[in-house]
Amino acid sequence: MPRPAIEFWFEFASTYSYLTVMRIGEAARQAGVDVEWKPFLLGPVFLALGWNDSPFNIYPPKGRYMWRDLARLAHKYGLPLRLPSRFPRNGLLAARVALVGAREGWVEPFAKAVMTANFAEDREISEPTVISAIVDALGLPADDILQRAQAESNKTALREQTERAVELGLFGAPSFRVDGELFWGNDRLEDALAWARGAQRLPAPG
Amino acid sequence: MPRPAIEFWFEFASTYSYLTVMRIGEAARQAGVDVEWKPFLLGPVFLALGWNDSPFNIYPPKGRYMWRDLARLAHKYGLPLRLPSRFPRNGLLAARVALVGAREGWVEPFAKAVMTANFAEDREISEPTVISAIVDALGLPADDILQRAQAESNKTALREQTERAVELGLFGAPSFRVDGELFWGNDRLEDALAWARGAQRLPAPG
Repeated sequence: MPRPAIEFWFEFASTYSYLTVMRIGEAARQAGVDVEWKPFLLGPVFLALGWNDSPFNIYPPKGRYMWRDLARLAHKYGLPLRLPSRFPRNGLLAARVALVGAREGWVEPFAKAVMTANFAEDREISEPTVISAIVDALGLPADDILQRAQAESNKTALREQTERAVELGLFGAPSFRVDGELFWGNDRLEDALAWARGAQRLPAPG
Repeated sequence: MPRPAIEFWFEFASTYSYLTVMRIGEAARQAGVDVEWKPFLLGPVFLALGWNDSPFNIYPPKGRYMWRDLARLAHKYGLPLRLPSRFPRNGLLAARVALVGAREGWVEPFAKAVMTANFAEDREISEPTVISAIVDALGLPADDILQRAQAESNKTALREQTERAVELGLFGAPSFRVDGELFWGNDRLEDALAWARGAQRLPAPG
């Protein structure tokens, strides 16, 4: 029997993706579930829903709530948090690099470092120097990796992954997919892992 | 020291309010927390955000996801679910009756019966005969209660409670308030109860 696995769809600009990126590795290892990291861009997903900005900016009561909820959850998980001076930040370059990392096996430490830069250190993750320094600190060849991240084939791959997200019915991040089941939100990580292990099965809709 | 308490804001048309209405009583009793039941109407709250319908109808991917998520969660909690043939149903009359019940101590069984009618039996809760039968089945004087529910003073009280929800920054249901902290969603029930018990405190924002 193959080891259970989940797809983890995330965006570097997303606050709740921050929480999940920081904890999914350990949670999945404890559950005995493999994680397939799927960086994508929320911008086109939101545009398909008619939003030209984060819904947390478009709807102020949702935004005010989210920042406080995020602070409470970070505290609960023991994660550092410094409210970013800019939101949302452009996660395009980081997502392109993460796509390379997903192929090469270093996406988890890279994603955690980028999320920490954005949400715990208030650094500008759209800056190539910031991303380059993060890759370098992982002991990886930064120049080479950034070049490959920005090659046409990799740009196309990220665009296709984002289009795939829309096709799959994703409307936010983080999201999880397990055997065709979609789970949305950091709150659903545990349910998605349980589903992958077969603990919470329910027949598919008829 | 007073017994810890939370405000529980809910709407009879709301799918995730169904889950919470069915389980908050037992969860709160186990946590040693009192519940102040606050029925309100989402319609005016959504209008204030620019929505003239449920966001689950306005944004089809969110709606498709919600119905499947609801089925999974109902299964997880062991709650019956029959997808309603009409959504959202008008919860105005039920909310007015619930407001009377909140004052008189029978709101919990009433709310559970109305939610069961809407989401497990596909009954039309906007019909006075349906609400009247539910009140009657609780052994309460239905005619008298429906008359008081529709008195001007009670209509005004529900309108004011809904306006208060907007003022407090609510943007959906269910929501919980504990000492000025707002929690949104069935997912946050456990966190709200823990907060009420002082287990998860974090300083208020400066």
